[in-house]
Amino acid sequence: MKLKVLAAALVAVAPSTAVFASEPIQPIRPAQEINLAQAELGKKLYFDPRLSKSGFISCNSCHNLSMGGSDNLRTSIGHNWQEGPINSPTVLNSSLSVAQFWDGRAADLKEQAGGPIANPGEMAFTHTLATSVLESIPGYVNEFKLVYGEDGIDIDKVTEAIAEFEKTLVTPNSRFDKWLLGDQNALSADEVAGYELFKNSGCVACHNGAAAGGTTFQKMGLVEPYQTDNPAEGRYAVTGKDADRFSFKVPTLRNVELTYPYFHDGAAWSLEEAVNTMGRIQLGKNFTPEENAQIVAFLKSMTGDQPSFAMPILPPSAANTPQPQPFD
Amino acid sequence: MKLKVLAAALVAVAPSTAVFASEPIQPIRPAQEINLAQAELGKKLYFDPRLSKSGFISCNSCHNLSMGGSDNLRTSIGHNWQEGPINSPTVLNSSLSVAQFWDGRAADLKEQAGGPIANPGEMAFTHTLATSVLESIPGYVNEFKLVYGEDGIDIDKVTEAIAEFEKTLVTPNSRFDKWLLGDQNALSADEVAGYELFKNSGCVACHNGAAAGGTTFQKMGLVEPYQTDNPAEGRYAVTGKDADRFSFKVPTLRNVELTYPYFHDGAAWSLEEAVNTMGRIQLGKNFTPEENAQIVAFLKSMTGDQPSFAMPILPPSAANTPQPQPFD
Ligand code: HEC
Ligand code: HEC
Ligand code: HEC
Ligand code: HEC
Ligand SMILES: [Ca+2]
Ligand SMILES: [Ca+2]
Ligand SMILES: [Ca+2]
Ligand SMILES: [Mg+2]
Repeated sequence: MKLKVLAAALVAVAPSTAVFASEPIQPIRPAQEINLAQAELGKKLYFDPRLSKSGFISCNSCHNLSMGGSDNLRTSIGHNWQEGPINSPTVLNSSLSVAQFWDGRAADLKEQAGGPIANPGEMAFTHTLATSVLESIPGYVNEFKLVYGEDGIDIDKVTEAIAEFEKTLVTPNSRFDKWLLGDQNALSADEVAGYELFKNSGCVACHNGAAAGGTTFQKMGLVEPYQTDNPAEGRYAVTGKDADRFSFKVPTLRNVELTYPYFHDGAAWSLEEAVNTMGRIQLGKNFTPEENAQIVAFLKSMTGDQPSFAMPILPPSAANTPQPQPFD
Repeated sequence: MKLKVLAAALVAVAPSTAVFASEPIQPIRPAQEINLAQAELGKKLYFDPRLSKSGFISCNSCHNLSMGGSDNLRTSIGHNWQEGPINSPTVLNSSLSVAQFWDGRAADLKEQAGGPIANPGEMAFTHTLATSVLESIPGYVNEFKLVYGEDGIDIDKVTEAIAEFEKTLVTPNSRFDKWLLGDQNALSADEVAGYELFKNSGCVACHNGAAAGGTTFQKMGLVEPYQTDNPAEGRYAVTGKDADRFSFKVPTLRNVELTYPYFHDGAAWSLEEAVNTMGRIQLGKNFTPEENAQIVAFLKSMTGDQPSFAMPILPPSAANTPQPQPFD
């Protein structure tokens, strides 16, 4: 039924509905089958710094939805201004990824969401303490009951609601998607040329699927080693296999214009630099300045509709709510 | 003309338009005569952590519009996790105040807004650096030009736009305001009793006007000294007059349910405690638990419509944008 409606919509836009069927990148679809009540609750939790020990850091601190779902820092700032170990990836379209984190150590968004709350370098709390804070807040007690049809708040419900909200954070309607759907005028000649280069040079071997990434883990520095001081070992940390050393989840290139700096160490501040590095160390190619500019132009055409919603208003704490502990 | 419309609206709601004319607290009016283009630009700046040295702290970090325009911490967390000297007051309805800051050292919102950007304990930047960051961002260059009708970005325009946005942060439509406007059912019997106590006990001597505060500076501890470790001296820091020692701007009680903890040192976490302290040290009164509960119920009826708008999407930095310096 839903598919029929989508198909009809595609026919209306594009004479040939198969225009993208043969392409390595598919259009981002609007969010499907969202449990809206869960997602609305999850939105509040996503913005609520009371899930952190300090009462100051929320998911949105490091995945700022005003800034492409990232923090635009080399590595993140966590509890007590700790310097994080790795670049914060965007949460936009992360529901489309094969797994979560650079090394894929969480299977899905729900599993992922428990991590930062209890990570001493991020929100520095515990699941038990976060849950007792929420249980002391009448507005949350009611909303969890409404959403889940039963009393009680646990980390399972908390992470499920956050994950449901994150499923809404897809970014359809980029100019590239309009072009894929048949609107020839949606891209400039340079942008189309950039896409052709992106396909013909071999970038799509790794950056493919609706998110132009997130489908596989790949070695960083396939034909030439990547120089970095960052100690992260990538997928090896999960599998223990030598072959996975320095293999990272291929990042999505959707909204990549907004998610600087680039790479797991956040070392590249411009797309020009990131594209040149990729060409050289993944493909052994040196792009001319013109080619580089065309690829960058194409990448910028993948900026889609950013999440648009009213800032959530959080339910106030009560007299018995455990107080935030920012300074100890 | 505008006044005529308002008067007509009041007639529609309340048979007697003069119902609040004799009351010490007046209804909050919706924002009037806003330069919308300036306010939209100011909203972006208010949410933009690139106005801080670290790239991590925005106005919204300490005046979170999801949390009553405050941070709900005893004292704020600033650059490098520095512990701030004083409780962060709400920005809601702050346009109605006689002056800005606890000691009134800024005359208005525009003058105030320059402070935190250059304060080493808050955003730790300089006006020059903040301006050069903005000037490197094409989206801002265009928007400033559109809004101000000329090229160039300076701190004067930045603070003017932020102040214009803050003027929109009024919170009309509380149940108390509906009652003031003639809707007898808007308040419960306990809430009305609380308002009567609030008037008859003398609270309105200091908490008056549309914001139920913000009109004068008053001594904290009028009839009994207030015990605190916080070294702030209040208005004395501005005037140097002995009489102003420990005199603070009377805070607004609008949305006070959301702006815990209370007092300039953030020492009182509940309204119950704050009301008891006020009664005792400002008026020499000991309220019974019933009286206290009625006053608290009245105070909670002053929570108005919270600001509701789509989260701003910030224009991305460019390759030449000065990089954030969180760790040095
Ligand atoms: C202090 C900064 C910080 C906070 C707070 C934080 N994150 Fe993250 N997040 C990161 C970093 C850094 C990574 C990458 C870690 C890694 O891959 O090892 C990450 C990874 C993720 C990912 C995986 C994305 C991908 O493509 O692999 C998701 C999803 C995510 N975070 C969501 C959340 C949610 C939900 C919260 C709040 C419950 C949260 N984050 C809080 C910094 C943060
Ligand atoms: C063999 C696999 C592979 C190929 C081929 C490849 N990439 Fe990548 N790409 C990756 C991986 C893995 C990363 C993340 C590496 C890291 O951060 O350590 C990445 C990262 C990127 C990034 C940074 C994204 C971010 O958010 O940090 C950009 C931009 C990018 N690639 C573009 C390209 C372009 C353009 C090409 C072709 C010239 C290309 N890639 C070819 C695997 C590949
Ligand atoms: C690190 C925390 C922090 C940041 C960032 C911050 N503020 Fe504040 N703000 C405070 C504190 C604390 C006070 C009270 C200081 C005082 O009175 O001495 C305050 C006072 C104010 C006041 C006066 C309110 C009143 O009733 O007196 C306004 C208005 C305000 N800030 C707006 C802003 C704006 C606009 C920005 C961004 C440009 C900003 N603040 C950034 C913590 C912060
Ligand atoms: C003589 C002046 C005066 C009187 C009378 C007075 N107040 Fe206050 N009130 C203040 C001042 C000044 C502050 C801020 C003091 C500080 O933080 O150091 C304040 C703070 C408060 C606060 C905390 C607000 C916040 O956001 O921190 C509450 C609640 C409050 N008053 C309620 C009352 C009630 C209820 C009464 C009557 C029982 C009352 N006040 C009587 C001057 C007064
Ligand atoms: Ca589900
Ligand atoms: Ca990045
Ligand atoms: Ca407060
Ligand atoms: Mg469950």
